[in-house]
Amino acid sequence: MKILIINSGSSSIKYQLMVMPTNEVICSGMIDRIGLETSNITFKTASNSHEEMLPIPNHKVGLQKVANMLLDVEKGVIKSTSEIAAVGHRVVHGGSDFSDTVKIDEKVKAKIKQLFELAPLHNPANLEGINVAEEIFSSAEQIAVFDTAFHQTMPEVAYKYAIPNYLLTENKVRVYGFHGTSHKYVSEKAIDFLENNSKIITIHLGNGCSMAAVKNGKCIDTTMGFSPSNGLIMGTRSGDIDQSVIFYMIKNLGYTADEVNAVLLKQSGMLGLTGYSDLRDIEAEAEKGNKECQLALQMNAYRIKKFIGAYAAALNGLDAIVFTAGIGENSSYMRKLVCTDMDYYGIEIDDEKNQIRSKAIREINKTGSKAKVLVVPTDEEYEIANQVYHLLQN
Amino acid sequence: MKILIINSGSSSIKYQLMVMPTNEVICSGMIDRIGLETSNITFKTASNSHEEMLPIPNHKVGLQKVANMLLDVEKGVIKSTSEIAAVGHRVVHGGSDFSDTVKIDEKVKAKIKQLFELAPLHNPANLEGINVAEEIFSSAEQIAVFDTAFHQTMPEVAYKYAIPNYLLTENKVRVYGFHGTSHKYVSEKAIDFLENNSKIITIHLGNGCSMAAVKNGKCIDTTMGFSPSNGLIMGTRSGDIDQSVIFYMIKNLGYTADEVNAVLLKQSGMLGLTGYSDLRDIEAEAEKGNKECQLALQMNAYRIKKFIGAYAAALNGLDAIVFTAGIGENSSYMRKLVCTDMDYYGIEIDDEKNQIRSKAIREINKTGSKAKVLVVPTDEEYEIANQVYHLLQN
Repeated sequence: MKILIINSGSSSIKYQLMVMPTNEVICSGMIDRIGLETSNITFKTASNSHEEMLPIPNHKVGLQKVANMLLDVEKGVIKSTSEIAAVGHRVVHGGSDFSDTVKIDEKVKAKIKQLFELAPLHNPANLEGINVAEEIFSSAEQIAVFDTAFHQTMPEVAYKYAIPNYLLTENKVRVYGFHGTSHKYVSEKAIDFLENNSKIITIHLGNGCSMAAVKNGKCIDTTMGFSPSNGLIMGTRSGDIDQSVIFYMIKNLGYTADEVNAVLLKQSGMLGLTGYSDLRDIEAEAEKGNKECQLALQMNAYRIKKFIGAYAAALNGLDAIVFTAGIGENSSYMRKLVCTDMDYYGIEIDDEKNQIRSKAIREINKTGSKAKVLVVPTDEEYEIANQVYHLLQN
Repeated sequence: MKILIINSGSSSIKYQLMVMPTNEVICSGMIDRIGLETSNITFKTASNSHEEMLPIPNHKVGLQKVANMLLDVEKGVIKSTSEIAAVGHRVVHGGSDFSDTVKIDEKVKAKIKQLFELAPLHNPANLEGINVAEEIFSSAEQIAVFDTAFHQTMPEVAYKYAIPNYLLTENKVRVYGFHGTSHKYVSEKAIDFLENNSKIITIHLGNGCSMAAVKNGKCIDTTMGFSPSNGLIMGTRSGDIDQSVIFYMIKNLGYTADEVNAVLLKQSGMLGLTGYSDLRDIEAEAEKGNKECQLALQMNAYRIKKFIGAYAAALNGLDAIVFTAGIGENSSYMRKLVCTDMDYYGIEIDDEKNQIRSKAIREINKTGSKAKVLVVPTDEEYEIANQVYHLLQN
């Protein structure tokens, strides 16, 4: 069964065509800078890699372009769009309505639209992708996989804020959590790998960063809340901050609320602390002795350590911590910082194993370490394809 | 040596006259509702207790009234204001300038004034108290004890926010921490009691609530940050919340920034969740089966548990947790909730010992519990008097 995965951002479309259940990737690629004269499109198969720059004014034109490449007589991979059994759409915000992957109908689309307010950068692009895919791949099932779904198992103590109840009941203000597809995928891989370990903390460190406490396979808490802006320190996002800072900046420093929001989302995090937003640059600078970079990395790791402790309390135990995503999979430096002075939690990293680069799941703790330290490469496209496949089988 | 302790709030003055180093309390009392027609004043000695209601328009009149009561021919306790060697002032915000108790001079007063912006409700009242006390008790040393001082030993990783550096260097935005006098007092008492235990978490649960991680007697992290509004869930304060909720309320729900701030400070916390702000009412309701009250107590305890875990990570170990202040000292219900399912941390509460009511320091863990659970009644007035006394001795 051929399944096309579509991940639409505000100015980009990532796509991947897979055969399930064999996990074969037929092709993958990305369009970015949609709306500009210099949109960039990539298309990659096992035997062929193609990239071109051309103006792509909107998502519809972009997705049509993807379809044309899939169908191309010479380089293409399918003869007709009808070969595609299903299109799996990543949808960022499912609110409290979706705790599972669903077939898309008008009701589902209406709910995705209702959630625009809660995810103004993402859900409109996701819905646009669905509408366009319905036209182009009209014989395929359209299926939505929500980034918030995995976190819907959180208990009330974890998802409620200590604010007046009407803000939850009427305005839906609560913890949702994000990166759910990744946390689900890597926690399941980790459980398989470890065989029957039930108290796991997943640490997704990419462009956005979040952690989840996973008990017997179910999420019980996560660091991102109402939006993907809080919790851990990220590339340009502050993560957690005393809310009074916002009121202080508005009242005493002359910022508007929008300006403060922009500072906390776009000029904070590692960028605000160091002037760099790419962790590789920051690590290189830190190794050269740049004190600001050293401190920023320490702060980042310190916050992760504190959440490991917080979630070990929520779990009343700790079997394993799991690093994933760009930084989590590739930065031995960050992993080492996080695992230093954590022997109270039975976390003892093996420095040699930590240096190994691999695309395989691997254990990097010392032999005998009470809590396991794993690196599990995430694969959100596979996870989406897998969920789509299973939904269609049942 | 007679030391008068003054704790001025925006509309109140608490006072206590002590003899040091013997810790004898000569008298104590409070004026509240300053500025109203129905101000209330209390005056209590070992043999005598007096209360009256009268209009007290401002702090100066209030403190003069206190002096008159101290000097009263029949009920008074001193013959002349010159008997008072020192006045110890509680000052809420010492910024980054004060990590210790200091004698007050014009420079110190100027710095307290510079910090009005950071503590608009408290520092102006504290400075007013100092100015009035200088006039009335003109022969006494005036000494300031800062609520933030104990936390000044925090390392940069703990006190910096992940925001642009200029907000720290130019605008002094950082974690300060509060309730320092209480955290210092109870952590020292706990260390004495336990003899040489070095990794302690103090949990101050009163009208405001905060926790501190204390390593070898020094604070290394605390839950309140730039202001006393974040961290734990309090009577009417939300504690930690995803900052995006603020922007959402402003942008989508029509609140002004000031209104959001008021909601988070005055209508949130236990009040927002239950309709009650007094914990005794909430516990009584919970015991009657009120689900909202049960959940709010669980949420409150869950957040404390997560900070215990976070600070055990910061400390890389845990010797003891210490409950203090009104709720911490008196609510066996809350202590039990916090200590439930925390055996991973070696925390095992003894239900019988937990029920004992006492003004003494006590251990309420089971025999053999790896981490000790202590109740240590706080005494900020004593701590202030003690610091004043030691400053004058050196």
